Amino acid sequence: MADIGVGMLGYAFMGKAHSNAFKKIAYITWPPPLSPRLVGIAGRNEQAVEEAARRYGYDYATTDWRDLVADERIGLFDNGGPNSLHAEPTIAAAEAGKHVVCEKPLGRDAAESYEIWQRVAATGVKHLCAFNYRFVPAVRLARELVDAGELGEVRHFRGRYLQDWGDDAGLDTWRFHPDEAGSGALGDLGTHVIDLARFLNGEISTVTGFLKTFLPGRKVDDALEAAVEFENGSVGTIEATRLALGRRNAFQWEINGSKASLAFDMERLNELQVFRADGDRARGFKTVLVSETDHPFWQHWWPPGHIIGWGDTFVHELHHVLEAIATGGNVAPYGATFEDGYRAAEVADAIDRSGERGAREAVRYKS
Amino acid sequence: MADIGVGMLGYAFMGKAHSNAFKKIAYITWPPPLSPRLVGIAGRNEQAVEEAARRYGYDYATTDWRDLVADERIGLFDNGGPNSLHAEPTIAAAEAGKHVVCEKPLGRDAAESYEIWQRVAATGVKHLCAFNYRFVPAVRLARELVDAGELGEVRHFRGRYLQDWGDDAGLDTWRFHPDEAGSGALGDLGTHVIDLARFLNGEISTVTGFLKTFLPGRKVDDALEAAVEFENGSVGTIEATRLALGRRNAFQWEINGSKASLAFDMERLNELQVFRADGDRARGFKTVLVSETDHPFWQHWWPPGHIIGWGDTFVHELHHVLEAIATGGNVAPYGATFEDGYRAAEVADAIDRSGERGAREAVRYKS
Amino acid sequence: MADIGVGMLGYAFMGKAHSNAFKKIAYITWPPPLSPRLVGIAGRNEQAVEEAARRYGYDYATTDWRDLVADERIGLFDNGGPNSLHAEPTIAAAEAGKHVVCEKPLGRDAAESYEIWQRVAATGVKHLCAFNYRFVPAVRLARELVDAGELGEVRHFRGRYLQDWGDDAGLDTWRFHPDEAGSGALGDLGTHVIDLARFLNGEISTVTGFLKTFLPGRKVDDALEAAVEFENGSVGTIEATRLALGRRNAFQWEINGSKASLAFDMERLNELQVFRADGDRARGFKTVLVSETDHPFWQHWWPPGHIIGWGDTFVHELHHVLEAIATGGNVAPYGATFEDGYRAAEVADAIDRSGERGAREAVRYKS
Amino acid sequence: MADIGVGMLGYAFMGKAHSNAFKKIAYITWPPPLSPRLVGIAGRNEQAVEEAARRYGYDYATTDWRDLVADERIGLFDNGGPNSLHAEPTIAAAEAGKHVVCEKPLGRDAAESYEIWQRVAATGVKHLCAFNYRFVPAVRLARELVDAGELGEVRHFRGRYLQDWGDDAGLDTWRFHPDEAGSGALGDLGTHVIDLARFLNGEISTVTGFLKTFLPGRKVDDALEAAVEFENGSVGTIEATRLALGRRNAFQWEINGSKASLAFDMERLNELQVFRADGDRARGFKTVLVSETDHPFWQHWWPPGHIIGWGDTFVHELHHVLEAIATGGNVAPYGATFEDGYRAAEVADAIDRSGERGAREAVRYKS
Repeated sequence: MADIGVGMLGYAFMGKAHSNAFKKIAYITWPPPLSPRLVGIAGRNEQAVEEAARRYGYDYATTDWRDLVADERIGLFDNGGPNSLHAEPTIAAAEAGKHVVCEKPLGRDAAESYEIWQRVAATGVKHLCAFNYRFVPAVRLARELVDAGELGEVRHFRGRYLQDWGDDAGLDTWRFHPDEAGSGALGDLGTHVIDLARFLNGEISTVTGFLKTFLPGRKVDDALEAAVEFENGSVGTIEATRLALGRRNAFQWEINGSKASLAFDMERLNELQVFRADGDRARGFKTVLVSETDHPFWQHWWPPGHIIGWGDTFVHELHHVLEAIATGGNVAPYGATFEDGYRAAEVADAIDRSGERGAREAVRYKS
Repeated sequence: MADIGVGMLGYAFMGKAHSNAFKKIAYITWPPPLSPRLVGIAGRNEQAVEEAARRYGYDYATTDWRDLVADERIGLFDNGGPNSLHAEPTIAAAEAGKHVVCEKPLGRDAAESYEIWQRVAATGVKHLCAFNYRFVPAVRLARELVDAGELGEVRHFRGRYLQDWGDDAGLDTWRFHPDEAGSGALGDLGTHVIDLARFLNGEISTVTGFLKTFLPGRKVDDALEAAVEFENGSVGTIEATRLALGRRNAFQWEINGSKASLAFDMERLNELQVFRADGDRARGFKTVLVSETDHPFWQHWWPPGHIIGWGDTFVHELHHVLEAIATGGNVAPYGATFEDGYRAAEVADAIDRSGERGAREAVRYKS
Repeated sequence: MADIGVGMLGYAFMGKAHSNAFKKIAYITWPPPLSPRLVGIAGRNEQAVEEAARRYGYDYATTDWRDLVADERIGLFDNGGPNSLHAEPTIAAAEAGKHVVCEKPLGRDAAESYEIWQRVAATGVKHLCAFNYRFVPAVRLARELVDAGELGEVRHFRGRYLQDWGDDAGLDTWRFHPDEAGSGALGDLGTHVIDLARFLNGEISTVTGFLKTFLPGRKVDDALEAAVEFENGSVGTIEATRLALGRRNAFQWEINGSKASLAFDMERLNELQVFRADGDRARGFKTVLVSETDHPFWQHWWPPGHIIGWGDTFVHELHHVLEAIATGGNVAPYGATFEDGYRAAEVADAIDRSGERGAREAVRYKS
Repeated sequence: MADIGVGMLGYAFMGKAHSNAFKKIAYITWPPPLSPRLVGIAGRNEQAVEEAARRYGYDYATTDWRDLVADERIGLFDNGGPNSLHAEPTIAAAEAGKHVVCEKPLGRDAAESYEIWQRVAATGVKHLCAFNYRFVPAVRLARELVDAGELGEVRHFRGRYLQDWGDDAGLDTWRFHPDEAGSGALGDLGTHVIDLARFLNGEISTVTGFLKTFLPGRKVDDALEAAVEFENGSVGTIEATRLALGRRNAFQWEINGSKASLAFDMERLNELQVFRADGDRARGFKTVLVSETDHPFWQHWWPPGHIIGWGDTFVHELHHVLEAIATGGNVAPYGATFEDGYRAAEVADAIDRSGERGAREAVRYKS
């Protein structure tokens, strides 16, 4: 079985999530398209990154990501570092001929995201922006229903990503530093909403809304609120916040079409709510447990009803990129490319500008 | 027991809902503050209004609402007619010294609503704008928790009123005629959301959003989407639509505070979701069945767990206005006065203007 | 419009529920089959029964139910008294030619229930045992699905009625007195479960289980647990308790067929859960809000999604008996006759005997 | 870091689940108590077991489990084979000095289970019967609440394990062969219910119920229904079926105490429903997402709200046994020992006998 060397930047939350996924791909998806070999891992804290190498089984640890870029055994560079470390290492890795995965948001704003996309696309390597929620089985099932025309004309998309850990003035993390993060809830949570809005309902044409910072002294936005129009004529809202008490990871969305409606909550990620206008007198939303043998990704897992976890979305995502590498296939449309990463950033920036200017903003994409 | 003569304008949906409530108040709320005597009912269709009089037990039917205004036996004039019939009869009744109830929206726009409010307020009669959802036990319980400071600092209010009967090009009703209705989803559903937003979270300071009409040939809005700021510093969204397939009467809202969050769905109107940051290791939203002996309005009803219906909200609402009449007490703050009706219209108009102008609108109220 | 005089025995919980229903039937169901005229109400406490007469509008109150039996204006005798007062007044009223409604359980045991049934049936009047939950729209819809063969072969019926008010040693009510009540949770809650089991799934052939009393000094059962077999080959459980903390009125049941499954909870009585094996890839239980224009009883009510309350089940039930009287039609199969009341008692007694004898009991019905 | 050699019997469903767990333990639980080294895997089908060895990374495959027993590098023998292969290999491995894990049910009946327990216990090795649902975070949290006395006096335990794959006459698997399986739903699903009943509520004293086979020609039971009494005075039901259409893995249970109630559904395994009688006016069941930093097992995983999957319960379970091995600690009380496996079998046999004899059975355990 062919394998591929992996170089990982970042050892904390995303480093753990991605490393776990690479390890599971090797046997849960069988046979894997390429067997991931964990070559090197990079991070700023020497002791921590060395422990991570031992923990996940990387051949070596380094505090300099350039070591990964220079390592010829590495065929896939996976960037799970802070947002400020997305551009340079990712571009360098691609220019060194490595396929690249980069955590979201792609850059700290649309300009940086565009630069990353353009520079990487020019190299011809595969690139995936890690909007992992595209790889939730229920989300992929939703996409398949949309693609099959089962929703009819879409009227509404409403998406909101609600967390509550931000209501703590004493907390500090790079996510609160404008230099490292670029923005707050906007880049962290808002881009997830924007990406699924685009994934499920197509391009957003206008936004009108604003960012909001609640806590005195906090330097990034805590929340965003926006009303949006889509190119397909549907309308809705996009919201994200780190201060919705009691909501831990509630990325909720709903689409209303003329023939079917779908609804979802990430806190119950194995379920999709499906309403069909099929004339049945027993009319209502179905709670679909997305774990049937004919459901997306389920060939890898367990018998129906034996649910999977949040961490497993990364298994599907990285499996997808390995398959694209192995077969020469495309990351799009099921995976988010760096173009998708850039486009999400344009929408995010438009929301920010809308708030600044107090006006509706048309979203314009560069090509 | 003292009684009060009731004159009803309208015999269809709202005529039925209000007549039922007056009849139930007489014995379910015991003793009632005033015993309603159904004197006269007015409507455009002679045959239909006569049947309504027989059905609900009004002494007489008339096709001219002026008969009710002229009838000295009538102490309370209840206007459940189309929006275009709100202003003139309501003002006339108040100027004839009758207490007045008027269905929402108060007028077809803020200007008309202001006129109604000012003219009626000048007479000194009691006035209630029939935002009946203030009288859902779960909504009143929410308000009591807010008033008691149990939410802490409020961060978010999100409200959306989702129905789906509007996705039918062949349908006709006065609700689709601009003359009679003033607006579509905005006045019909949007003002309900605005009223509860104000009831639970105080005044709205800015709105940015738009109205949307989906169906070709439809002359009123089908939906609205808006991002809003409140005077208390919280932010959120206000949405309403008649084209959310599968949602029949889903008036859903959520408030996130620093100490508690609340969530609600009118399709399960007996339930309030309550999250408290109380340090309990078992952390989560409670599904509160609002039917305990110490819950709002429950003194009138059944043992705990024996739920009430949508129609019963009118019992509470009209009981409230009868009590204000009997005791000389105020309709506010638990009931919506005509000032509340006017203020909801100002917010609604601001959303409309925001869409027209493509800009954020500050909400300004006349006094 | 023809009317019928009603005599009511009992003014407390059931007296209120039935009186409310008679008053609503007169206008909510339009035109009503017969217009109920509230003639007389009887109860033990003179002051309380007189207040009830004023409250609900009965012509007179009496402390002697024989006055009602003797009153020729009364065509329907409705017995909402304690269980010990079911037999004699009900039989007397029927023998005086009045149609009779009697609250459940029909008698305090199978023998008494049989006597009531036989004596009343011999008179030829209409008789209904007030198992009102047959008149929940979701329950009737379930029955219609069963009747249409949409469930296929039934495998399981599981029913449990969970309340929690009984875990209070200081509480006293006739429901705890063996003389007046006959039994505890068994007659009060268990017979409801048995009745719906029979209504939805046919006759029970064997039971094996027991009664349980938790509180020292309590003289009736607090709970029952039983495993049961049905004549159609399906199996399941029947449970009831007054000590299930947090469950206020949770009468929950589920039926599993080879083609469809149904599930229900009385605390959300407007909803029916429906699973169909229809080959849809989106597979799951639908949450059906039973409020569509083609749903049972809904012709009387509001637009879809505007839910009704527990008290409204009595409107449907008493409307049903009035229709049977007006048209000469049958109370069965949608209404429970006294034979159904008797049969529920046989099953209840069999559970009691099973517990006493420690053995499975075949259920045998007398005809 | 110390490691331990693992020998696995079985490569299909349980072989996959356990192998995955051993691989994840090595890095998700950090540092692991012992690092599992996958030495050998045994199975009947040579080609399949060889592929499994490649897939999961075992050093070798064999069609003779005796090779594993004889292999000195193996310190832990994990038996995931069919029930008929539980006794001999497990006993042999233990007698060879290896610690043993055995899938449930321990034996095909109480006698065989007793034999396994006694023979293995005599060797002094650690033994765990793989009732993995004890290692669901929500179940462990429930146990901790029980242990802390937070439920008060327990009144009820109701447990049912509902699946629907059995309603297919054409299906064949060893699970339908009495020789290999011992029983049907009873051993497969029923013992899970019995084990959690014992884990959460203590010993069962009596059972009354029966087994049921629906499909002609099926040689094992499809379902069981029982009413039960516990030694602590509480009562309830135990049910399991493979023919509850629409229920895929619905292991549902509820406990009602005098101070708190708990409820659970395996299809939403990250959630625990918790009701507390704490006097709060907002009274209801909390939906607790069991993913907080102070929740059981959560130190291994992700930030709150990022849920885990069914497969991860095996990570916790096998981590637990490795810890017991590493530290010399006990498998009980949080893990099920072979004594627990035996006791579950006694209860299962008693239900079977109850059905055969038509009588209540006292449960008696040998020591």
